[in-house]
Amino acid sequence: MSATTRTEYDSLGSFEVPVDALYGAQTARALANFPISGRGPDGDFVEATVRVKRAAAVANRDCGALEDRLAGAILAACDRVLGGEFRDHFVVDRFQAGAGTSHNMNANEVLANLANRELGGEPGRYDPVHPNDHVNQSQSTNDTIPTAIRLAALAKLPRLRAAVDDMAGALEELAERERDTLKSGRTHLQDAVPTTLGHELGAYAWTLREEGRRLEEAGSALERIGLGGTAAGTGLNAPRGYREKAAEELARLTGRPITPHPDMAAAMQSMADLAHFSARIAALAGELTRISNDIRLLSSGPRTGLAELRLPPVQPGSSIMPGKVNPVMFEMLNQTLYQVVGQDAAIQAMSRAGQMELNVMMPALGSALFDALEWLTAAVTATTERGVRGMEADRERAREYALVSVGLATLLNRAIGYEKAAEIAKESERTGMPVADLVAEHGLLSREEFVAMVERAARTGEVDL
Amino acid sequence: MSATTRTEYDSLGSFEVPVDALYGAQTARALANFPISGRGPDGDFVEATVRVKRAAAVANRDCGALEDRLAGAILAACDRVLGGEFRDHFVVDRFQAGAGTSHNMNANEVLANLANRELGGEPGRYDPVHPNDHVNQSQSTNDTIPTAIRLAALAKLPRLRAAVDDMAGALEELAERERDTLKSGRTHLQDAVPTTLGHELGAYAWTLREEGRRLEEAGSALERIGLGGTAAGTGLNAPRGYREKAAEELARLTGRPITPHPDMAAAMQSMADLAHFSARIAALAGELTRISNDIRLLSSGPRTGLAELRLPPVQPGSSIMPGKVNPVMFEMLNQTLYQVVGQDAAIQAMSRAGQMELNVMMPALGSALFDALEWLTAAVTATTERGVRGMEADRERAREYALVSVGLATLLNRAIGYEKAAEIAKESERTGMPVADLVAEHGLLSREEFVAMVERAARTGEVDL
Amino acid sequence: MSATTRTEYDSLGSFEVPVDALYGAQTARALANFPISGRGPDGDFVEATVRVKRAAAVANRDCGALEDRLAGAILAACDRVLGGEFRDHFVVDRFQAGAGTSHNMNANEVLANLANRELGGEPGRYDPVHPNDHVNQSQSTNDTIPTAIRLAALAKLPRLRAAVDDMAGALEELAERERDTLKSGRTHLQDAVPTTLGHELGAYAWTLREEGRRLEEAGSALERIGLGGTAAGTGLNAPRGYREKAAEELARLTGRPITPHPDMAAAMQSMADLAHFSARIAALAGELTRISNDIRLLSSGPRTGLAELRLPPVQPGSSIMPGKVNPVMFEMLNQTLYQVVGQDAAIQAMSRAGQMELNVMMPALGSALFDALEWLTAAVTATTERGVRGMEADRERAREYALVSVGLATLLNRAIGYEKAAEIAKESERTGMPVADLVAEHGLLSREEFVAMVERAARTGEVDL
Amino acid sequence: MSATTRTEYDSLGSFEVPVDALYGAQTARALANFPISGRGPDGDFVEATVRVKRAAAVANRDCGALEDRLAGAILAACDRVLGGEFRDHFVVDRFQAGAGTSHNMNANEVLANLANRELGGEPGRYDPVHPNDHVNQSQSTNDTIPTAIRLAALAKLPRLRAAVDDMAGALEELAERERDTLKSGRTHLQDAVPTTLGHELGAYAWTLREEGRRLEEAGSALERIGLGGTAAGTGLNAPRGYREKAAEELARLTGRPITPHPDMAAAMQSMADLAHFSARIAALAGELTRISNDIRLLSSGPRTGLAELRLPPVQPGSSIMPGKVNPVMFEMLNQTLYQVVGQDAAIQAMSRAGQMELNVMMPALGSALFDALEWLTAAVTATTERGVRGMEADRERAREYALVSVGLATLLNRAIGYEKAAEIAKESERTGMPVADLVAEHGLLSREEFVAMVERAARTGEVDL
Repeated sequence: MSATTRTEYDSLGSFEVPVDALYGAQTARALANFPISGRGPDGDFVEATVRVKRAAAVANRDCGALEDRLAGAILAACDRVLGGEFRDHFVVDRFQAGAGTSHNMNANEVLANLANRELGGEPGRYDPVHPNDHVNQSQSTNDTIPTAIRLAALAKLPRLRAAVDDMAGALEELAERERDTLKSGRTHLQDAVPTTLGHELGAYAWTLREEGRRLEEAGSALERIGLGGTAAGTGLNAPRGYREKAAEELARLTGRPITPHPDMAAAMQSMADLAHFSARIAALAGELTRISNDIRLLSSGPRTGLAELRLPPVQPGSSIMPGKVNPVMFEMLNQTLYQVVGQDAAIQAMSRAGQMELNVMMPALGSALFDALEWLTAAVTATTERGVRGMEADRERAREYALVSVGLATLLNRAIGYEKAAEIAKESERTGMPVADLVAEHGLLSREEFVAMVERAARTGEVDL
Repeated sequence: MSATTRTEYDSLGSFEVPVDALYGAQTARALANFPISGRGPDGDFVEATVRVKRAAAVANRDCGALEDRLAGAILAACDRVLGGEFRDHFVVDRFQAGAGTSHNMNANEVLANLANRELGGEPGRYDPVHPNDHVNQSQSTNDTIPTAIRLAALAKLPRLRAAVDDMAGALEELAERERDTLKSGRTHLQDAVPTTLGHELGAYAWTLREEGRRLEEAGSALERIGLGGTAAGTGLNAPRGYREKAAEELARLTGRPITPHPDMAAAMQSMADLAHFSARIAALAGELTRISNDIRLLSSGPRTGLAELRLPPVQPGSSIMPGKVNPVMFEMLNQTLYQVVGQDAAIQAMSRAGQMELNVMMPALGSALFDALEWLTAAVTATTERGVRGMEADRERAREYALVSVGLATLLNRAIGYEKAAEIAKESERTGMPVADLVAEHGLLSREEFVAMVERAARTGEVDL
Repeated sequence: MSATTRTEYDSLGSFEVPVDALYGAQTARALANFPISGRGPDGDFVEATVRVKRAAAVANRDCGALEDRLAGAILAACDRVLGGEFRDHFVVDRFQAGAGTSHNMNANEVLANLANRELGGEPGRYDPVHPNDHVNQSQSTNDTIPTAIRLAALAKLPRLRAAVDDMAGALEELAERERDTLKSGRTHLQDAVPTTLGHELGAYAWTLREEGRRLEEAGSALERIGLGGTAAGTGLNAPRGYREKAAEELARLTGRPITPHPDMAAAMQSMADLAHFSARIAALAGELTRISNDIRLLSSGPRTGLAELRLPPVQPGSSIMPGKVNPVMFEMLNQTLYQVVGQDAAIQAMSRAGQMELNVMMPALGSALFDALEWLTAAVTATTERGVRGMEADRERAREYALVSVGLATLLNRAIGYEKAAEIAKESERTGMPVADLVAEHGLLSREEFVAMVERAARTGEVDL
Repeated sequence: MSATTRTEYDSLGSFEVPVDALYGAQTARALANFPISGRGPDGDFVEATVRVKRAAAVANRDCGALEDRLAGAILAACDRVLGGEFRDHFVVDRFQAGAGTSHNMNANEVLANLANRELGGEPGRYDPVHPNDHVNQSQSTNDTIPTAIRLAALAKLPRLRAAVDDMAGALEELAERERDTLKSGRTHLQDAVPTTLGHELGAYAWTLREEGRRLEEAGSALERIGLGGTAAGTGLNAPRGYREKAAEELARLTGRPITPHPDMAAAMQSMADLAHFSARIAALAGELTRISNDIRLLSSGPRTGLAELRLPPVQPGSSIMPGKVNPVMFEMLNQTLYQVVGQDAAIQAMSRAGQMELNVMMPALGSALFDALEWLTAAVTATTERGVRGMEADRERAREYALVSVGLATLLNRAIGYEKAAEIAKESERTGMPVADLVAEHGLLSREEFVAMVERAARTGEVDL
């Protein structure tokens, strides 16, 4: 035994633990067993785990199952961690023991050592507070870990929603400013009917607002927790009334209507709530992918692309092509979104992999979800600040496209029928003469009248010919 | 020109059409262009498309944009198709023109020919009823196709939900029957605490009921339709009031609260509602995968597996191993579920691929979704009938496992603490002596008292030692 | 018993079989059990299964395990099916019994009935030829089905490769024709350095040729077959020498170097060869997706897009926008490709789902792969014929873009350094004055000299300033 | 300007840079633009990028395009970074500017500052060595980044292959040790024919060796590099002979046969080589998933599962269930594998997202690949050390299963035919009497003779009855 470690014992025998560690033998074993990603636990997940421990201690105490002195020491320990201290003692790798036993024991050990210190003890002795018997009392990894994953996801949700709503808001401002900016619609990437930039950007904003609402809706299923199900959802070893009291304390701590899950066995077996939540995030990522792709295409150029939008320059674009400015924020966004789609693929596969009373893939599932939420929030926020705000329309160019679009022939349908309109469209394409000029030439309307009609049609959809 | 064809004309020139076809040149061109899968359109999709045409005709007529005589003929044509006739004239391949122009024109042509026949005309003349000017009046492929995909998905939804609820019901019956059947829980696939088969199966049922509710919820977003947005969501060429009237007629035809989409441009750009719907189906498939895997594992054996469940034999299991009976229904279910997951992967990728005012991937997206819904419904139904009903528990074997499980030591935690209980568990594993006997030997409880406690704990989660 | 059926018996009891069916009770049970997709087996898969039966009969006969008279009758039966007869008696759904027992028994029953008919017997009697004892002799579903899937995939492979090579060839022709067509490169969708259309299209062709080579390479792993492993790869019940003789006969029938798999247990457990093959197809689909997207973008317009390429019109593009011509072939291609990606997602998940000595997901895995191969081959072929051939460059427009591209400033790097070149690029963007004019204005080169330099640089990459 | 920063200038204007940073304005801008994941670049990727810079400097010098003094300083700078210094100056987030311009400029700036320091200059002055004109000479982000990704992947490949081979070796040892250990095969999770544990584990090993070979094969495509293609694969601004010399230097640095890519434009457009490489890793992950699942199932128990294998205990299994030991290493492995599958989903989607002359998703694509390689290598290594080595068979239990398996009836097929054998199997299942006893009872063989036959059959596949 070196002077830098202390010897601890667990059911497998003795194990050396760094002398200044607040964790114990099981955490130390986990560090040795799982040197995989080098990434410790997500911060919100640590927070949520400790909140679970706090709620359990309160509920055990109030049910008369945990004496006040021990409960008090555990609560004090929790509160110091919740206050931001000792976070570096939560150390187990993202890829770890099935179901998260190691992370759970890490929390149990740290809190037991802190509680004992509070009561005059020293790290590694676990007396009077024992990690399993007291900190983990009435709990199992089976119920604490999925509960903590839900709470951590709920902690991240408002930040993502705010980021999405903020981007929607920025797009709405642009849409309002460009409400009447005439532009050509493009369907199949081909000339289509006239519309306005306001309609187009406004639709992006509408979609994002809707996705924000959907995220919130998916979040509500996460408020049902399996805490109190203990092992396999049986509730074994938890006192009567415990699960309600624990949920109440978590509701207080999180400000959300946390309630016990209606089927405790289902809450252990099934990751469906998290899978649905992840799918929502992935579908949001899908919409953002589309919108970001569109913005990159609309801002393509300056000379060889569509160039209807101009993005704010935030950094030089190329190491070889001088003066180039690329849509870097949206490129970063697209990349992040693809990784979010990858996270969802992992999460769905892990969710399917539950067996019998438990899904042991939980730690990696949670980690994949946390990363998706964090990265997406950061990417959307940065893109809104540095990419969406400051975006400008090239109104002249957009209008020019609208007035040469072969799709203008559509406005003639009701007046002269689809087949005759098609002839004009083809004449326009063949000769290069704009539809407006052909309309005039064919004596249908003067060029000015036609252009005025195009403008009203773009704004209102109304055509009166 | 051969005697078996007639010559038709469209904006690209002339094209030969089979003389007895009710479709026209554009459909015939599509047949030549797209010999890909050999699979024609989904039946509900044809139905939904014709309902859209009917709704459009009613709305156009009621807005005064379509004269009564033509409207009447179109409606009569629609009603014959809706009545089940002429379905073999809807022929375009699943993989076809972007956005579904070919399928839309197929419907326009068939209905125009039928309407004209009604009015004394003949196929291929398109007079007085024109496919574009009248059948497709106030419409675009951009708005009819996504509307029809939504309606077809909604038509399939109740069948899937009924199938899922039916399986849940069958599991509930089993759970009720085996409410008190003692069995060992298994977590990490290892011996865990005692529970009942009722809890386990009941949790499967609970999860499926919940998934059913979720499907319904996702369906409601499909009731918002882009019809009336015409090209690019502009509403160009549609009369005022048209979109509300058309939605009303579709509500009447489908019995669902169909309403115009609040943002027509978003309704064209975005496939998000369908992507979310597909994700829900995929997550349901994920839960079914897990449950089906569990049932196959619980019925493994008869001698070399767990053998707690016995499945009804529906066919000999092996071509070489005589007397073998395999869990074929659940194996078929698992296979179908994986394909459903594949469909979702395709759908999400297609949903992300929208560009500017349109997502041209719609036809294949719809097809993938329709197949997922159909196959899943059929697989769940067959499995319920031939796999879930008729399933039986081997109560004796389940009880035996429960009473030898090393996990029984958990019941001692509160009496003697986690560490001492662990010693008993390890003694049991080492010596092969059941925990119940060791409990007696250690003088904690008699064997009978302990078994009675195990049974109560399994049913209620309560332990009093 | 109705007059339209006959009664047959298997190890589960009696079952009614349509009186004119060449299949028997087990197939009939499977029809009742699996009414899932309504799709019968892939044609090449039926062919491959019957080839396996033929090879087994030859090998059994040559090993002295099957008497000549029975072998002869079985071979004759196989040859009639291989000649194209009786295909409609292969009827089991794509989603069926795990591992494909039903399809295997379908083949065993049909061939037994045909063989007995040959020998004077009648359908349903299985005497003297028995489906299990003779047609399936020395075989198991475990080894026949994965072998047949491999053979069916190999049958489809040359057709896909030819389709891909054909598209590559068509692109090479275009690249050769447009070898010197000046155009602007676009990176980040922004103006980049000059290049030629020949380089761009040639790179597409190069990539496709390479993918073709990769397909072939992946195919070679499929030539190792598990036939002879019988149940669980043990080789139980197969005579010595059987597996080599069977492989030899399959080599003869397929013209490929079919050999026994070096590890028969691995050949049953693992679908890795098929998973790798599918991944290759999916990655090919990824490259085609990119190329198809590019072509749709390069042909966007005619007025509001890039319009450097013109696609041959193959059908009217829109039901509402007259005269519109859309890139329908490439849109169809993109849709098919996304479904192929979905097939691969399903296949990979199924491949991972093997358990112990077998992967029961094989039938659906095979089906997903067959569809991917078929659809992809058809889509690529149609797109080459109707989309790639007949594609034309708008050389004037491409040149115009090249000469206004801000990226031309890159050619000045070596002469005046990146920072000064960046100033010229920015001046060009700000003022709208082409780089060529600024170069002249700054006295670096005359406009003509600069343009000549641009042209040489585009073709050869060489810049001498 | 604060005393902790210095002011630098780039083509967008001035920007503050930390005074002790070796990077410059463009890197500092990127830090401000991309606060996404908080994760800096992969170590091998930094190494590979600097190797590229070294190779370029050597090639430029040897082509006479870079004067010796500057080249010397750049090479010295590279060598210090390659020696392990200054790594903390490579700081740009994993999610960053499209194509990796920021990471490339980070390297250019750090090396320029180091080179100038070598020559007596100071950070931020870029004289005489300029980041773009000299460090990035004859290069573009378009060619350096994909080259560096390839090289970094190749650097990681041997470590993964060694880990996989090492696991295969450990399994081979076990297979050899348990060569004759009789056990029941299980197909469909049901009783099947007898085999040996050696066959089963040996097949896992065979599969892993094969996957190792496949990885190597896929790696060879990464040895073709686009360096020298500069922007858009044109080769603009690179001297003649440069690409060959640069490849040569990289071959020297890496010990691999690095060569210029045969189509430089394809090398920029297409990520296919990386996509195929990732797919191989994902398919390997699929095989490992299956094997790990099997091992968890075979070691299920100790009392309520199959318990044929015993895993070495590495940590206590449960926070609530005392004495529980879970298969934590394989659980960790499974979790990591699912994330690897997620990485591949992201990579394939990013690979498809190339547009025109470039795929801007490269940085995230590379990052996803690097993580997959790293995590997989670590997880396989840890599992081999702590899970595979030390694994033991419960030979008695395995033999017991083999001798009660209903699948033993298969050995009777050739002697009495499939149908009669089926009757014995059913009798065994119905009565619970082992097949061996029934064989004796039916007077076919004595029990001992039958058991001896079973043992030989399991080992050799030979049955002589």
